[in-house]
Amino acid sequence: MKFCSSCGAGVALRVPPGDNRQRFVCTACGEIHYQNPKLVTGCIPEWEDAVLLCRRAIEPRYGLWTLPAGFMENEESAQQGAIRETLEEANARVQVEQLYTTFNLPHISQVYLLFRGRLTNLDFSPGEESLEVALFREQEIPWDELAFPVIYETLKFYFQDRKQGVFLPRVGDIHWRSRELGKYSVSMLET
Amino acid sequence: MKFCSSCGAGVALRVPPGDNRQRFVCTACGEIHYQNPKLVTGCIPEWEDAVLLCRRAIEPRYGLWTLPAGFMENEESAQQGAIRETLEEANARVQVEQLYTTFNLPHISQVYLLFRGRLTNLDFSPGEESLEVALFREQEIPWDELAFPVIYETLKFYFQDRKQGVFLPRVGDIHWRSRELGKYSVSMLET
Repeated sequence: MKFCSSCGAGVALRVPPGDNRQRFVCTACGEIHYQNPKLVTGCIPEWEDAVLLCRRAIEPRYGLWTLPAGFMENEESAQQGAIRETLEEANARVQVEQLYTTFNLPHISQVYLLFRGRLTNLDFSPGEESLEVALFREQEIPWDELAFPVIYETLKFYFQDRKQGVFLPRVGDIHWRSRELGKYSVSMLET
Repeated sequence: MKFCSSCGAGVALRVPPGDNRQRFVCTACGEIHYQNPKLVTGCIPEWEDAVLLCRRAIEPRYGLWTLPAGFMENEESAQQGAIRETLEEANARVQVEQLYTTFNLPHISQVYLLFRGRLTNLDFSPGEESLEVALFREQEIPWDELAFPVIYETLKFYFQDRKQGVFLPRVGDIHWRSRELGKYSVSMLET
């Protein structure tokens, strides 16, 4: 950020009075421009013992598999966002059932909210951002070709919980250890 | 938003290619400025059968009681944010135990994540944004002087669940019916 979005003057990094962090503050009108984490909302679309995954047609992670998810929009709920993303990426309709995983990704200032959702029918097809969409049973999941750690961890918990017959909401953090190598650590709040 | 924060030129509302919503797009450099919901993180600080509330020293809702909560910062987890807000507003230290309520407030594009947290001791006092902080048992809660519907609903579920001895994570939406009258409706995902 270099310019004030309200008046167009330059901004400077300063700690505003009463605050304890540097913010972008307008040098002319004084407006403080806070920057905050973004919410990503999505779902695990379920059909019998399978889940629907999308193969990404966009960067990052082009060609890898993911759950339908994307940035939450203003004036919608996270559940509505999960339904919207599933429709956009997989032309699929789901009924949202449970908030399943909540993952903090502090290194990129994102929070993922991933719901369990029941597919209302088998009418699905790739949306603009997907190369391919398909249903996978546990033993068919392309574990080595998943796009993001948050997807891997969510699916891992999902199939664990399904064996037990109880889906416990999971809350945790994913920390990158090394961006290049894709190494990360996971810490979960006790459930 | 009137000016591009990257180059200082004017912005216009347009639907970018491949998108389906109006965004602020820079008329000079073409940057798309997305606007997304903000996360508010906080906690229910517990001590035996009481919870800690803060009386607000700031607008909105000056003088009314609330749980310690505030906007999540970049590069922190929601749990870290809840701990930070509790320290800032009540000079109190908590150990976060559970994500308890997740509330969408679509009319103001906010999502609240409220955790249960255990006070580590009784050393607390008003922070800069609080007039007063105190512990309340259920029958002492100032139900008519709570600052926000999300706080009322969270505390209502909390004391319901405590009677049952099981705290179920709750996910729902709060919709304003009339801003002036403070009327709202609540819809919850089934737990």
